[in-house]
Amino acid sequence: MPAPVDLDLPTLLADVEDEILRLVADRDASTRGMYEMVRYHLGLDGSGSSGKRMRPLLGLLAYASITGEYAPALPGAAAVELGHNFSLIHDDIEDGDRERRHRPTLWTLHGIPQAINTGDAVFVLSRIALHRLTDLGFPDAKVLRLMRLYDETCLALCEGQYLDIWTGEHDDRSGVELYFDMIGRKTAALISASIEAGALLATDDEEVIRRYRQFGWALGLAFQLNDDLLGIWGREQATGKEPSDLAKHKKTLPVIYALEHAEPTDRARLEAIYGADHPGAGEIAEAMAILERTGAQEYTRTEARRWRDEAIAQLDAAGVVQPEARERLELIMRSVISA
Amino acid sequence: MPAPVDLDLPTLLADVEDEILRLVADRDASTRGMYEMVRYHLGLDGSGSSGKRMRPLLGLLAYASITGEYAPALPGAAAVELGHNFSLIHDDIEDGDRERRHRPTLWTLHGIPQAINTGDAVFVLSRIALHRLTDLGFPDAKVLRLMRLYDETCLALCEGQYLDIWTGEHDDRSGVELYFDMIGRKTAALISASIEAGALLATDDEEVIRRYRQFGWALGLAFQLNDDLLGIWGREQATGKEPSDLAKHKKTLPVIYALEHAEPTDRARLEAIYGADHPGAGEIAEAMAILERTGAQEYTRTEARRWRDEAIAQLDAAGVVQPEARERLELIMRSVISA
Repeated sequence: MPAPVDLDLPTLLADVEDEILRLVADRDASTRGMYEMVRYHLGLDGSGSSGKRMRPLLGLLAYASITGEYAPALPGAAAVELGHNFSLIHDDIEDGDRERRHRPTLWTLHGIPQAINTGDAVFVLSRIALHRLTDLGFPDAKVLRLMRLYDETCLALCEGQYLDIWTGEHDDRSGVELYFDMIGRKTAALISASIEAGALLATDDEEVIRRYRQFGWALGLAFQLNDDLLGIWGREQATGKEPSDLAKHKKTLPVIYALEHAEPTDRARLEAIYGADHPGAGEIAEAMAILERTGAQEYTRTEARRWRDEAIAQLDAAGVVQPEARERLELIMRSVISA
Repeated sequence: MPAPVDLDLPTLLADVEDEILRLVADRDASTRGMYEMVRYHLGLDGSGSSGKRMRPLLGLLAYASITGEYAPALPGAAAVELGHNFSLIHDDIEDGDRERRHRPTLWTLHGIPQAINTGDAVFVLSRIALHRLTDLGFPDAKVLRLMRLYDETCLALCEGQYLDIWTGEHDDRSGVELYFDMIGRKTAALISASIEAGALLATDDEEVIRRYRQFGWALGLAFQLNDDLLGIWGREQATGKEPSDLAKHKKTLPVIYALEHAEPTDRARLEAIYGADHPGAGEIAEAMAILERTGAQEYTRTEARRWRDEAIAQLDAAGVVQPEARERLELIMRSVISA
């Protein structure tokens, strides 16, 4: 029996970054500048923070929780991280965000044309990542199934983004229903796919794969709801170090819930502040008081907890988890979901 | 022996459009607006011209030239056409082009954010197109090889676009060398891949596949050079119905060649006109006179013919061509290359 593989998170992270670095290395002299932009955005050129790499770590641990090792899942993990980052590059342009992780976004440094194109390149590189699964000996049918899952997930990502930036009329569903439709596609789909991909590579047991997919989906929803809470009540927002999501016109659950449940005067006031170009600190505080009166924070927190518990229940139901991988998965869940 | 398949171009075109329409149909009510944008750009909503569909037709005819039929190659043809159109949607934003095929471009109708995202969706749909090859019974290994070819081609496309919109310093190669590097990636790679994909699906003979790839590459270069000629000396440009590429600051071979070969005064004047925001008709005529003095038109035309002849030579060398498919291929070549 082989020695158990160490699932130390920094080691996994370093291996994911090595896998990605191989993919985003220069290919020739004349296009070096494009790959430099790719590495800058990914935080792989030493210029700053690289993000949490939550999605690839979850994928590796999903694989490890079934097999005890993680290395064969690295191409899938790299694909998911690159896919996530392609969408960030484009989202930053679409949302007009000038900073990400305390660094200038790509479009502010190199202009919108190069940033769109570099995002496209990152998307292609995420697809190219998956071909190494063949070199690692995975059966062709499995690689193709993973690619289909990945392609359908990327389409959901685009659909979610379409819903997020859509400003016109919607069908007659409530705002909360539309919100869950949007974050399901925009956030939960990729987190779910990352975890499902880990399971898919690890086993042929369809029931296990199905449970992992649902585990990932629930975790993705919980993650987004937690992010929504932090975007309004997080420490950096509370201290004014980061603008509140209220000032950034983000479609987050607390606001959508409050707009549906506030008294008419509160509702009108919240709409005015939420729609203002540059609401002041006093207006933000006023909006937060309205959110509190509607119970929006408590509602969002309850939903986040409910989905986190559902995630854990699905993982338990899969019933194949190795203890160390399980512990690391919980560690990530705890680190990203504070609700 | 089965009856020979009719290779009538309008029939092939209709079948390609049916294949694409299945892929870009609405998936659900809440995201219908996104798919409407996709169909608008593709000219599949009855709102106007859809382009020549040259790439998919070449792919189908490449397949037919080896097998005598074309239907099994439809997913590959759809993928290539969608991939081409994803790049057009993004190029229109990157180049600030407000019209394409006499219709408003997507970004002018729906804003840059939705247009970037819709382009992304078209890219994903191009990938999803390929999965139907599995349903049609192609071996998994062949489908994967085609996907790898397609992914590498899309990366080349991004690299070519990077070079096209790059405005800074380059290495010490000449402008003409850099130009061929750029159009190889930006134009020839996808046309070559389309034809190679047709061959790849039709045969396991590596020598035939290699010849078709080279046929496509040469044809792609010839096509771009012809396009460069039309962009300056084409009928619509000559009559002023379309702005000359000289006014659009496009990096085309006649201009690049002329900048390298003109006398110092001509060169300075050409640079001034080419760099002007809105050169008048008189200045355009002056620039064209400078191009003529350097022999730029003749040089470009000679290069276009050379590459077209190389394309035909490679097709001949492949040695497996069915007469009817061969005739149709020549028909397309003649229709898109007038040089």
